Amino acid sequence: MHPATIYLEDLSVGDVFTSGTHAVDEQQIKTFALAFDPQPFHLDHAAAAETLFGGLAASGWHTASITMRLLVASVPVGNGIIGAGGEISWPKPTRPGDVLRVTTTVLEVTPSRSKPDRGMATMRSETRNQNDDVVQIFTSKIVVFRRQADVSG
Amino acid sequence: MHPATIYLEDLSVGDVFTSGTHAVDEQQIKTFALAFDPQPFHLDHAAAAETLFGGLAASGWHTASITMRLLVASVPVGNGIIGAGGEISWPKPTRPGDVLRVTTTVLEVTPSRSKPDRGMATMRSETRNQNDDVVQIFTSKIVVFRRQADVSG
Repeated sequence: MHPATIYLEDLSVGDVFTSGTHAVDEQQIKTFALAFDPQPFHLDHAAAAETLFGGLAASGWHTASITMRLLVASVPVGNGIIGAGGEISWPKPTRPGDVLRVTTTVLEVTPSRSKPDRGMATMRSETRNQNDDVVQIFTSKIVVFRRQADVSG
Repeated sequence: MHPATIYLEDLSVGDVFTSGTHAVDEQQIKTFALAFDPQPFHLDHAAAAETLFGGLAASGWHTASITMRLLVASVPVGNGIIGAGGEISWPKPTRPGDVLRVTTTVLEVTPSRSKPDRGMATMRSETRNQNDDVVQIFTSKIVVFRRQADVSG
């Protein structure tokens, strides 16, 4: 279900957005790693088995990027998802065959004091695999605009 | 210059690693955005001009991924760069034509109390463009192993 466009006044602490799913395969993991994180544990099964990962694992940045893809489709903020940053952690790696989904909870909603047309929302996005293991937690503040005043009066 | 492989005992607080550069073009920005962050301000000049970005900008996750690519080639940790997470911020967006580079400073080195073969290093990686604007700050803890004991004697 793709919910309607969301503005600042629609957000309440505790609101939850649930994403669709994304199936990760070995080819995606290797393609991303070759472009952005060419380390053995992201590229080669045998080499990965000898490392802390104990087997092929996706780059954390790949998990983050897939998470963003799922967020864009599941958190329909009117002005788009524009974050200034946040805290990210990867409690477990993403593996070939994982099916990821993201649950996003609104932690805080703060209207801007200087700009009446917008505010900030603090969101915690947990990315889980098909076994309900959390592979990423990302807590961020994003800019959210208010619904525009009805100029027709 | 590609420095030699680094182990825990080689790292000191204040050590700095400087990466090579990566030139970002419009095609890279759009390709990444289509795959992972398909929002108008990452895909279309005209649409982007009407947003907070005021023009085409790379996804923050694209900046993070390019940063990782530069880190892998410039911070030659013996066991690879394995992070459990950290704090990320994007003070300015990456734009088409930007040439990025990363400066990484060692903030803390902590031997593990339970595992004598390894420790944690806290690193602050600043990604800058050709005008010296900081486009990303990423502070993370990574696992670093000690050099293996010389088994021959």
